[in-house]
Amino acid sequence: MPSHNPQAPDPLAHPDTPRIETREEVMFFDTDIGGVVHNIAYLRMIETARTRLATHMGMQLRDMANTQIYPVVVRTEIDYRKPATLGDHLIIQGHLESLERVRFWVNFRIHRQSDPATCLITCRQSLALVQMPQGKPLRLPEDWNQRYAHLRA
Amino acid sequence: MPSHNPQAPDPLAHPDTPRIETREEVMFFDTDIGGVVHNIAYLRMIETARTRLATHMGMQLRDMANTQIYPVVVRTEIDYRKPATLGDHLIIQGHLESLERVRFWVNFRIHRQSDPATCLITCRQSLALVQMPQGKPLRLPEDWNQRYAHLRA
Amino acid sequence: MPSHNPQAPDPLAHPDTPRIETREEVMFFDTDIGGVVHNIAYLRMIETARTRLATHMGMQLRDMANTQIYPVVVRTEIDYRKPATLGDHLIIQGHLESLERVRFWVNFRIHRQSDPATCLITCRQSLALVQMPQGKPLRLPEDWNQRYAHLRA
Amino acid sequence: MPSHNPQAPDPLAHPDTPRIETREEVMFFDTDIGGVVHNIAYLRMIETARTRLATHMGMQLRDMANTQIYPVVVRTEIDYRKPATLGDHLIIQGHLESLERVRFWVNFRIHRQSDPATCLITCRQSLALVQMPQGKPLRLPEDWNQRYAHLRA
Repeated sequence: MPSHNPQAPDPLAHPDTPRIETREEVMFFDTDIGGVVHNIAYLRMIETARTRLATHMGMQLRDMANTQIYPVVVRTEIDYRKPATLGDHLIIQGHLESLERVRFWVNFRIHRQSDPATCLITCRQSLALVQMPQGKPLRLPEDWNQRYAHLRA
Repeated sequence: MPSHNPQAPDPLAHPDTPRIETREEVMFFDTDIGGVVHNIAYLRMIETARTRLATHMGMQLRDMANTQIYPVVVRTEIDYRKPATLGDHLIIQGHLESLERVRFWVNFRIHRQSDPATCLITCRQSLALVQMPQGKPLRLPEDWNQRYAHLRA
Repeated sequence: MPSHNPQAPDPLAHPDTPRIETREEVMFFDTDIGGVVHNIAYLRMIETARTRLATHMGMQLRDMANTQIYPVVVRTEIDYRKPATLGDHLIIQGHLESLERVRFWVNFRIHRQSDPATCLITCRQSLALVQMPQGKPLRLPEDWNQRYAHLRA
Repeated sequence: MPSHNPQAPDPLAHPDTPRIETREEVMFFDTDIGGVVHNIAYLRMIETARTRLATHMGMQLRDMANTQIYPVVVRTEIDYRKPATLGDHLIIQGHLESLERVRFWVNFRIHRQSDPATCLITCRQSLALVQMPQGKPLRLPEDWNQRYAHLRA
């Protein structure tokens, strides 16, 4: 179980916190018969944002196939607050939240471009860097501990 | 944030708790370049199990398109403990965990058919019954409060 | 069965032919254990390009939910020529190919941004405009017959 | 372009033609806002049927991860004849259609369990066996040429 301390300082208040913003337009394949975006589709949008955040932190997709070191999702917590629907222009904002010894937490928020005040989705994920095919979790890179010292748990 | 009381009695100990078991064989479309099942694919397997659990509790898929009352996922918490891979035969076990006024919680566990003791995935989801297209959450059915009184929060 | 006349004039040679270009970076969820992009993932990329082409031709996603007139895929033909892999930057090019009375054909080609000469994927799809929920196919809009007269079959 | 000879004898008339039948219940994640099954979802159902057909022909999913020889889709042709919707019980029937030197063709048909006479989907796919990660296509197994001699092109 993750410890989530609401008294912790806001990571976004610190200029060195890596952050990202991506955009998606809701397609048919994102929706279901209920008339709104299917719950699983948001996780694909979040994966795209997370991958760009990882690039920003020094992990390139093209390198991963060579090194076989992959960031692996260990836990996802996602809250569905308001629905999005077909044709909505969504903004996914993500940032690094905290670092542990072998895991790190990332945080996402989705809103409509036309209505930034209304939060549709919030999501936290913890990840580990894993050496495949053995599946061995690695310590987080030493330079992360220095660059993101303010986020160490 | 959900309250999850570890001292609560085990819902599976009570014979009236609705429960379900489904099976999946891991297909190519479930895997990714890391060589194991992609994190999003498990949520599709869990949706299939959840839908059968809902049928068991009296919600038929065929009715939903008519009544436009849909069970909507409000929150997902999923922990990825061990990876599954191509061709694995997986068992998804699910049960109703608790009832609130407008939300209910369901709980899932995934293991390999060949190794029931090793848990790969645990997942909790809360859902609400929502009248579409207005998106209005409804009170849970009165008969649930009676049939599943032992699960009332 | 579609008639595909290789002697037909190239639709791209005519300036009034609607055309589109979209970009995708290959994500983990696009790949499978074979180490390359899964065959179904390209169809999601093509749907995004097709939707933008439709917008260009006057069909707005936001309108569809109101009118309940949806472009429905009637047939897909897709050839997988060369594989793409994780982190590839792909360009999807699409254009209107021909108009029939109730169907129209669109055509797509995918290549890597770094290598436009190497075609990875070619795809043709025919679509109809369908009034839901009855599922009734409609005649194509009269103004298409005028604007795209050079593409009438 | 595939040659598809409508005068060819029906592969299903021969007792040695490998064939398969799988079942799917339409889930929320299979549908879209149009109220019916999304066009891409059928291809996932067909992949499951195709994988079971491959098992029947001697290709085990568990072996593929070891040998790194994968059946790769080279071409898909799919016709969407009638829509399926949420809760429908679908039957996917597939069989081997023909063998070439490095490619083979498989054929699928989807109908509702309650209405076998109404065909919803027809699909043909050609596949090659490919040695990864080089991506080298292999000749089809010699024993296929003997066991399925009646399907040689």
